[in-house]
Amino acid sequence: MVIDLSKVPISGGTGYPEPFRAAVAGRSRQRLGNAIGLTNFGVNLTTLAPGAQSALRHWHSHQDEFIYVISGALMLVTDTGETLLTPGMMAGFPAGVTNGHHLVNRSEEHATYLEIGDRTPGDRAEYPDDDLLALPKTEGGYYFAHRNGDLY
Amino acid sequence: MVIDLSKVPISGGTGYPEPFRAAVAGRSRQRLGNAIGLTNFGVNLTTLAPGAQSALRHWHSHQDEFIYVISGALMLVTDTGETLLTPGMMAGFPAGVTNGHHLVNRSEEHATYLEIGDRTPGDRAEYPDDDLLALPKTEGGYYFAHRNGDLY
Repeated sequence: MVIDLSKVPISGGTGYPEPFRAAVAGRSRQRLGNAIGLTNFGVNLTTLAPGAQSALRHWHSHQDEFIYVISGALMLVTDTGETLLTPGMMAGFPAGVTNGHHLVNRSEEHATYLEIGDRTPGDRAEYPDDDLLALPKTEGGYYFAHRNGDLY
Repeated sequence: MVIDLSKVPISGGTGYPEPFRAAVAGRSRQRLGNAIGLTNFGVNLTTLAPGAQSALRHWHSHQDEFIYVISGALMLVTDTGETLLTPGMMAGFPAGVTNGHHLVNRSEEHATYLEIGDRTPGDRAEYPDDDLLALPKTEGGYYFAHRNGDLY
C-alpha cells in the first residue's frame, strides 16, 4: 500500500515524565507503519525543529533501531562522539549494544528522518545521561523509573 | 553506528529456483542492517537495473515489509493495479495481507530503494502469478515448492 502522507496524522507529545519532556518538545511524528497496518515494526517520519532531540540519549535491550536522514542536518551523539548526518546518511543501533545514542537538531532549519524500530517484547531502555529507565509493561509499552527503581 | 556504504558488500544472486531467476537478475543489494549487527529486521539498499524486478510478485504470511524510494522510478504492481513510485515515496505491505506486490524498473535508468523486512519465524510467501511457494525451514530461511507441494 502506497503511503499518502497527507492522510497520516502528525503527532507531538512524549511518554517521558518531567523533567525530561522539554528535550523532545520540538519533535513531531507521522506514524506511517501504523497507518498502513504494519505491526512487527514501526516506521515514523519524524521532524525535529531547531534545538529538538529525537529522544534522550538511550539504548535498547531487545529492539533494533535504524534511521535514514531525508532533509536537514542532525547531530548523532553517542559514547564515541558526534557525527553530523546529512540527507541520504543512515545509522543503526543494534539491540543490546550499550552505546547511548540520539539525534539533536543544532541547525536553524527543520530536519526530517525515517526511524524504524521493531517491537520485540521485554525491551527496556537505559538513559546514560539521565536518572531514567524505561521498563516493559506486561501488556506492552513502557513505564518509567528512576535508576533506583522508584517510579516516576 | 553510522553506515559507511563503501564498506558494505554489494551482492547479487537469488534463492529462487529456475525458471524464476532471470526476473531478478538485474537486482543488487547492500545488506546494511546485517552489516551493522541488526538482527530483528533487515535493511537493504537495493538497486534495480532497467528491466529488473524487486522479486516475483508475492505476499508474506508473517512478516511486514516497507520500502522507501531513493532514486529513479519504480512501478509498484499489486492486485489493484500499478502505481509509479518516485523518490521520496514509500509503501508498506503488512503481514498476512494477500495482495501480491513487487517493484519493476520499467525505466531506462537504475533505481534504488531501501527495503525493510522483519524476521518473524514461520513466515511463508505466496506468489500469485507463479507456481511457487516459499516455505519456512525449521532452521530459518525458506525452501521452494510448487503449489502442489512438490519440491523444486
